[in-house]
Amino acid sequence: MALYVMKYGGTSVGSVERIRRVADQVAAVRAGGDDAVIVVSAMSGETNRLVAMAREIMPATVDTRELDVLLSTGEQVTIALLSMALKALNCDARSWTGAQVRVLTDAAHSKARIVDINTDRLRADIEAGCVPVVAGFQGVDEQGNITTLGRGGSDTSAVALAAALGADECRIYTDVDGVYTTDPRVESRARRLDRITFEEMLEMASLGSKVLQIRAVEFAGNYNVPLRVLSSFEPGPGTLITYDTEEDEMEQAVVSGIAFARDEAQVTITGVPDRPGIAYAILGPISDLNIVVDMIIQNVGADGLTDFTFTVNRDDYARVIEHLRSQSSELGGGSVSGDDRVAKLSVVGVGMRSHAGIASRMFRALSEAGINLRLISTSEIKVSVVIDEKYLELGVRSLHEEFELANASVDPD
Amino acid sequence: MALYVMKYGGTSVGSVERIRRVADQVAAVRAGGDDAVIVVSAMSGETNRLVAMAREIMPATVDTRELDVLLSTGEQVTIALLSMALKALNCDARSWTGAQVRVLTDAAHSKARIVDINTDRLRADIEAGCVPVVAGFQGVDEQGNITTLGRGGSDTSAVALAAALGADECRIYTDVDGVYTTDPRVESRARRLDRITFEEMLEMASLGSKVLQIRAVEFAGNYNVPLRVLSSFEPGPGTLITYDTEEDEMEQAVVSGIAFARDEAQVTITGVPDRPGIAYAILGPISDLNIVVDMIIQNVGADGLTDFTFTVNRDDYARVIEHLRSQSSELGGGSVSGDDRVAKLSVVGVGMRSHAGIASRMFRALSEAGINLRLISTSEIKVSVVIDEKYLELGVRSLHEEFELANASVDPD
Repeated sequence: MALYVMKYGGTSVGSVERIRRVADQVAAVRAGGDDAVIVVSAMSGETNRLVAMAREIMPATVDTRELDVLLSTGEQVTIALLSMALKALNCDARSWTGAQVRVLTDAAHSKARIVDINTDRLRADIEAGCVPVVAGFQGVDEQGNITTLGRGGSDTSAVALAAALGADECRIYTDVDGVYTTDPRVESRARRLDRITFEEMLEMASLGSKVLQIRAVEFAGNYNVPLRVLSSFEPGPGTLITYDTEEDEMEQAVVSGIAFARDEAQVTITGVPDRPGIAYAILGPISDLNIVVDMIIQNVGADGLTDFTFTVNRDDYARVIEHLRSQSSELGGGSVSGDDRVAKLSVVGVGMRSHAGIASRMFRALSEAGINLRLISTSEIKVSVVIDEKYLELGVRSLHEEFELANASVDPD
Repeated sequence: MALYVMKYGGTSVGSVERIRRVADQVAAVRAGGDDAVIVVSAMSGETNRLVAMAREIMPATVDTRELDVLLSTGEQVTIALLSMALKALNCDARSWTGAQVRVLTDAAHSKARIVDINTDRLRADIEAGCVPVVAGFQGVDEQGNITTLGRGGSDTSAVALAAALGADECRIYTDVDGVYTTDPRVESRARRLDRITFEEMLEMASLGSKVLQIRAVEFAGNYNVPLRVLSSFEPGPGTLITYDTEEDEMEQAVVSGIAFARDEAQVTITGVPDRPGIAYAILGPISDLNIVVDMIIQNVGADGLTDFTFTVNRDDYARVIEHLRSQSSELGGGSVSGDDRVAKLSVVGVGMRSHAGIASRMFRALSEAGINLRLISTSEIKVSVVIDEKYLELGVRSLHEEFELANASVDPD
């Protein structure tokens, strides 16, 4: 008899009909003799509706304490409706807001972090044969103020609950049926992975595979909570995200997937003084503008000067260029250039640790496809390159084939 | 410097624009140097939207615990938006759910009664110059379960808060500008009353003047909280509901108003044994059918038999007649008759206590208008009659004139 934390996102509970389907799935798990704790998001569209009203009232800066009070109603509606749907199936259930469970967070409204979860009441429900239905995304601070974890925080709620309860698995039900070797919209032969490690998933997630929230994966890794991504609409095993415990099985897959990110922009400052602190002098003010910098590359300099390159989201490109040009003299007179039509392409796999030559296979495959590499950056389990955006699809397909990730039509050698 | 509890119903906060107008009113009170605690309902339409989803999921019997979790989100949205609107006007404000205030209720979901209100946090807000915005209609039981007071319970929340805080006045903002001598849609010369007593208001409310919830008026009377009904859309003093402290002023108004109720039905059983317990034998089963009986009249009997008459809502008429006919032999073989096209007409006023002849003036006026009286029932401050429904408007206008309630065009004698 296992205990599963099952999390359903906004699309999966987006209508009364869909809530009923979720109830069917949960009732089936209970009928199979296993225990379940459910975590849900607001019905799709609800959060946007609420935010729009708030913006109408406070166009400048919305008060985050009140915004949390407002947005937390979204999940509260879902927990009530799903509990009703379960009871209508004679599956005993009870709803819990974040405050009622007591999901204790810090006081950082709209981006709170979970500090502690009291599992007493949930355990009592489970022991009584009742399914607790918990509002994701929300908690309460020491003073009893309602807090939210920020968008997508329901995944984090689910993982944190699974960790606190010592659940056998945290199942994230979503609109895709698992994690793929790459985006099936780009490469139709992309294959669903049965397993992937936390580290690989982190690299995949941060590189644009929007299946899971990064924070949730980190959390699951830290607390060693087995995480499974499944479709809420179709049956199937999904993808299990876990530590690399079965060496033999995992070792066969040197490369797990091809991740990519569109909408990138590349910024270069050439001829800046190659002195200690130059990186901070350039990037500190960018960070103060609340702009997220992704790849950072600095090559060996010559003549006391160096070139410094980084990537940002395309939306921030103009602001970054403007800022750097205004600061040019303070940065030693470097010249600022850039390109906002680039994309990032990455090969991810824990097998790289023990397999040499992955990077060179990648570079050769891209070269044979006629794709020029603008930037290269590597980590232990990932090799990333920045290329012209127009070559993105070609690059994904070339690498998918090079590393034999496709499902069918692979040579049986 | 006074403290006002100000309550706004669903229509008054039915849109972002209206919430802004409420914020203007509250800010004006604060600017005038007075303190305010605000109580709000769900935006109009919201409760019905939520109930419809619940009914879709549980058509038979909705789980009331979960229904309370669901419905309480309605006011929670309003408190957040109104607090934002006040802050946008630089009027410091903070939202409070029923659970956060701690409005402690019993555990009777969907019709809970307030047991205790903790005013510590609200008082701290007031002292800090911050306007607390409290969710009406909701509370929390000993176990931390969310409860609701039932429809219209926001009035009760406001009065209970005013009592607990020792507020100078509880102001109920609504879509009418006060309590009238009768319904202005029936008698265009109906006049707004400046003052009315709790007892009169109770009689008016229970007789069909839907301005305030009866429970709220009772509560205000019990705790001697001055209650004022005002328009949330137009300026004006409204009607103050209070104890009859100023004898002179009040004594002039022998009759305060003419109340009426349409959609009544009258049921008579003739020739039932005039024995102890017969009233209970007849009415007990009616009450078990969840049918509310209004007037009850039993005349002196003769030959050991008596006639027994009562009124019910027209919607319940058929069920009552059917039930009584099926029970006829057990009730001593009385014969059942009735009429479902009747209306109730009442004259209300505390002045009646010390003024004789009000009833006879009423009967004479109705007689001169050619209206036959089917039933008569009196209390200390009210005389009610049941008449043919078709004469209702004529009766209202005749009595309004007889008791000189009209505003203009009254003889200056």
